[in-house]
Amino acid sequence: MQQPSATSKMTKLKVLFLTSASIKEIPDHIPEFQQFSQDFEMVYHEVTTAEAFIDSLQNDPKLQDFSGLYLTGAFSVMGRDFSQFIPYFPDTLKVASFPWVGAESFRPDLFKERGILVGNVGDGSADDVADIALSLTLSAFRFTSYLESRLRESGDTNQARNTLGSYELDPKTKMPALAPMDNDRTKGVHLGGKHVVSPRGKVAGIIGLGAIGKAIAVRLNAIGMSICYNKRTALSQAELDSFSFPLTYVESIDELLPQLDLLVLAVPHSPQTVNLINEESIKLVKPGIRIVNVGRGSAIDEEVLLKALDDNVVTSFASDVFQHEPKIDERFLKRFDVALLPHMGPYTTDNFQGNHKRVMRNIAGVLKGVDPRELGIINL
Amino acid sequence: MQQPSATSKMTKLKVLFLTSASIKEIPDHIPEFQQFSQDFEMVYHEVTTAEAFIDSLQNDPKLQDFSGLYLTGAFSVMGRDFSQFIPYFPDTLKVASFPWVGAESFRPDLFKERGILVGNVGDGSADDVADIALSLTLSAFRFTSYLESRLRESGDTNQARNTLGSYELDPKTKMPALAPMDNDRTKGVHLGGKHVVSPRGKVAGIIGLGAIGKAIAVRLNAIGMSICYNKRTALSQAELDSFSFPLTYVESIDELLPQLDLLVLAVPHSPQTVNLINEESIKLVKPGIRIVNVGRGSAIDEEVLLKALDDNVVTSFASDVFQHEPKIDERFLKRFDVALLPHMGPYTTDNFQGNHKRVMRNIAGVLKGVDPRELGIINL
Repeated sequence: MQQPSATSKMTKLKVLFLTSASIKEIPDHIPEFQQFSQDFEMVYHEVTTAEAFIDSLQNDPKLQDFSGLYLTGAFSVMGRDFSQFIPYFPDTLKVASFPWVGAESFRPDLFKERGILVGNVGDGSADDVADIALSLTLSAFRFTSYLESRLRESGDTNQARNTLGSYELDPKTKMPALAPMDNDRTKGVHLGGKHVVSPRGKVAGIIGLGAIGKAIAVRLNAIGMSICYNKRTALSQAELDSFSFPLTYVESIDELLPQLDLLVLAVPHSPQTVNLINEESIKLVKPGIRIVNVGRGSAIDEEVLLKALDDNVVTSFASDVFQHEPKIDERFLKRFDVALLPHMGPYTTDNFQGNHKRVMRNIAGVLKGVDPRELGIINL
Repeated sequence: MQQPSATSKMTKLKVLFLTSASIKEIPDHIPEFQQFSQDFEMVYHEVTTAEAFIDSLQNDPKLQDFSGLYLTGAFSVMGRDFSQFIPYFPDTLKVASFPWVGAESFRPDLFKERGILVGNVGDGSADDVADIALSLTLSAFRFTSYLESRLRESGDTNQARNTLGSYELDPKTKMPALAPMDNDRTKGVHLGGKHVVSPRGKVAGIIGLGAIGKAIAVRLNAIGMSICYNKRTALSQAELDSFSFPLTYVESIDELLPQLDLLVLAVPHSPQTVNLINEESIKLVKPGIRIVNVGRGSAIDEEVLLKALDDNVVTSFASDVFQHEPKIDERFLKRFDVALLPHMGPYTTDNFQGNHKRVMRNIAGVLKGVDPRELGIINL
């Protein structure tokens, strides 16, 4: 019988782990990392400038024969363009992986030319982002964000609710006026002229039905909405069968918008998704539509949106992303008919630790000969 | 062939509809009310004082032979005790109904002694209240309420997020301190020492599994939680079969609390539910539990809760109801680890209009001979 320790010492492959002075992100409190650090010889290297890193790649003996590259946000101290280092990696490098989704800085195609696989975290954050979309949807229908702010100010539930039933804005504050004393609740629940309704029985349209959009669909179905979607190609029958409820494909956005009580944007940034909601498309919406955005802020022309909110063409807007992020257009900040979150979709312990587990799985998988199609490899 | 108009004029039964100067709630913009007003002879009567109403019941010829009684909040100008009028109702009265759930002011038992059926709206608002429980749950896990307030203050997504990653409170503001510069996200996402996690894969326990609790269970399942519940008797197999996921019955609350990442209270006010969460029971919870309350504020001893929030025994509290409502304990108002809504669970147009449809259905149903067991009658 072989002695595992002796064997593993002889055959351990090296994994380069980049750190920086400002960003330490060594996942040694994640139990899986203990095993990973035993399975491979970990080489920790602190980066400073691009020039220094290229020099190390050329001359530092520790950096001549690594097989895996474990990336964290530390690389960003050298600038955004990571692809500049690709020519200097040793021929032993088989796989590089990072604990997030976007590969913009990495040029996976150039890695591929050198035969190096690149892995990301795939759909790992879909549920967490979809939870934020659900929270925003509930706020868009029920105005929880505004009503909570009133309760925090007044400390009294009756006072906090005393604008529910109002049809106008206070001319000074531009916030909902007090409800008239003889308010008849059977006319419905209004708030500064906006309608407070249940999402139940209403129609939601999701643009972008990837992993996030699908997770959103499941949640909106649970609150009683019927689901339409638009994407480049319709779901296959097998994909549809994985849902316990029907999803209706609408081929064009122009056809989709007039049907919706709620529009949910879950699209990535691309030339096709910039200003999806613009002066022309806003004319097509069903008046009173609510809009939720958890994709990219660039999908909405915010000038057009602000006017549509004023005109009550759009009842409410609830968003985790903004056109000029990190700055928010000041006109949003004081509105009662918007809910605003700070691009926090993926911010959970589960997601951040899960992402590292996926990096370990990508690197260990490739180096141990697992079929890369079963891993999160994006440049096959 | 009979002429329907002539016939109906001869046979129309009277329905008394109470109004008051301050509360007009005549649902004549609800389409179903057109039909209802044609099917019955509507007698509108404005009430002022209890004495005046008793006088009218005894002497006003219009109030001597009504068969149905349609109640709205208007009755409350005469005080809370509606049962005082029961002896004065004519023998022709067969059914009284009101557009809400609670029958506290009505003594359905005394109505029964006179052979008058009493109807309420049953489970009509369950989905709307459950939506609020879901919104509060997401806030309890993700701290959306605090992060939105930071974004509204700063107008900058990066600044709004710069406390995510902090392990302490700022000693001055008692709000989360800034995250340390070398914050390692793989340690998890913290906020002032509280843990920001996904609800996915965590255990929720619902106390009170009536219509609202069941609607909450469906929603929490959709965000990936597993569901335990406590109520007097376990669900029948037929009830369990109506869910597409398992629910685990836990017979005692003492046994339930140590298992939960999230406690959801959906119990009505009763001697058994007052101070369910108290000095003894808080010792049983799994440290770090989150608590959501959409039942009655009396279920929680808020002194005990506030201490548990400070001690991090309870991570967060998110509630639509409060112990001393309408006043909120001031200490809650500035906390970052609570989400506060102004008892708004049932406030939607759908619910308020749906409740009137249920009143019409109760009254018309009884008077047209529908089996009362198929209606919302509560004193059979």
